[in-house]
Amino acid sequence: MTTQTVITLPPYRRGYHLITHIIENELPDLPDQGVLHVFIKHSSAGLTINENADSTVRTDFESFMNELIPENHPLYMHTMEGTDDMPAHLKASLLGSSVSIPITNGRLNLGTWQGIYLCEFRNHGGNRKLVITVVS
Amino acid sequence: MTTQTVITLPPYRRGYHLITHIIENELPDLPDQGVLHVFIKHSSAGLTINENADSTVRTDFESFMNELIPENHPLYMHTMEGTDDMPAHLKASLLGSSVSIPITNGRLNLGTWQGIYLCEFRNHGGNRKLVITVVS
Amino acid sequence: MTTQTVITLPPYRRGYHLITHIIENELPDLPDQGVLHVFIKHSSAGLTINENADSTVRTDFESFMNELIPENHPLYMHTMEGTDDMPAHLKASLLGSSVSIPITNGRLNLGTWQGIYLCEFRNHGGNRKLVITVVS
Repeated sequence: MTTQTVITLPPYRRGYHLITHIIENELPDLPDQGVLHVFIKHSSAGLTINENADSTVRTDFESFMNELIPENHPLYMHTMEGTDDMPAHLKASLLGSSVSIPITNGRLNLGTWQGIYLCEFRNHGGNRKLVITVVS
Repeated sequence: MTTQTVITLPPYRRGYHLITHIIENELPDLPDQGVLHVFIKHSSAGLTINENADSTVRTDFESFMNELIPENHPLYMHTMEGTDDMPAHLKASLLGSSVSIPITNGRLNLGTWQGIYLCEFRNHGGNRKLVITVVS
Repeated sequence: MTTQTVITLPPYRRGYHLITHIIENELPDLPDQGVLHVFIKHSSAGLTINENADSTVRTDFESFMNELIPENHPLYMHTMEGTDDMPAHLKASLLGSSVSIPITNGRLNLGTWQGIYLCEFRNHGGNRKLVITVVS
């Protein structure tokens, strides 16, 4: 049986944010075994799984990714929507639009140090919509 | 119930190409809720989800990714299959071999501005095979 | 019906390693059609799909990714766990924590040249746990 939920996240500042607890709070009763699929309906934000403990990991993600994929690159032709827009599209594809996580014994089976990150690549991204699907 | 379809794409030139319509045309009747999994059976091409409107986004993907992952890098040892081959493998893993998209009310639940890209990393990649699986 | 298995990999040296055969050996009987989801429960290692033939592809992955995401970058604040730690987190998100592969006629439907890589980003990563879920 498949169940689905939509979550509208409030606006987050540009950067990387732990949202595991927000997703867990919105989940229906989970099956014994399955896969949780989380999808973000935007092309200038992303989702990834990474360290859930030290917040400097998230700070380093923001600063390193900004250096790897800079604003104002002379190659960019897609510049009409702001200097943060084309880098946001590139980051969205490099980090991805969805994460999928095993469900075991009715709980997300993440590693001890893993959490779900919202990656907000725009300066003013606004609300972001997630579609959560439980497949079992 | 799970259903599966294979699509053989015609050769595309090197670059990033919107293929949402091609996939939608080949889909069976979709369930009310589920996940669509699209997989590319090649290690020198990829799939990603990004902006579906302005074609300069796709142009910028090609030019930026070529700079990020250059040909003829002095480190490369895998050079026998052409200068575009090792960069193609690296891009394939950074962008990914599959995308998965929620299905809601019998339709793909993409955001308004999202589309599915075929990422053709080779100069002469030829036909590319996709395996489409609907899980519900 | 969903089935799930946990695999504990032995320690691998830093680098990229073909583990398709290890996963295939641990699989239960596979359904006619479905999706195999492989998830790594760590934030400093990853999984990806790439070329399964020439081992220099894996060598080039290691050397290129080390140059793309260097150790000792002056921006990094998360440095307490060793110079290989923050690059490992970044690589883990860029390459991803899971792969999903179609199942067709009771077998993994990989392309001829595709295999599953364990990406070990730490110098001494130790055992790594994978959760394998078959959805059909």
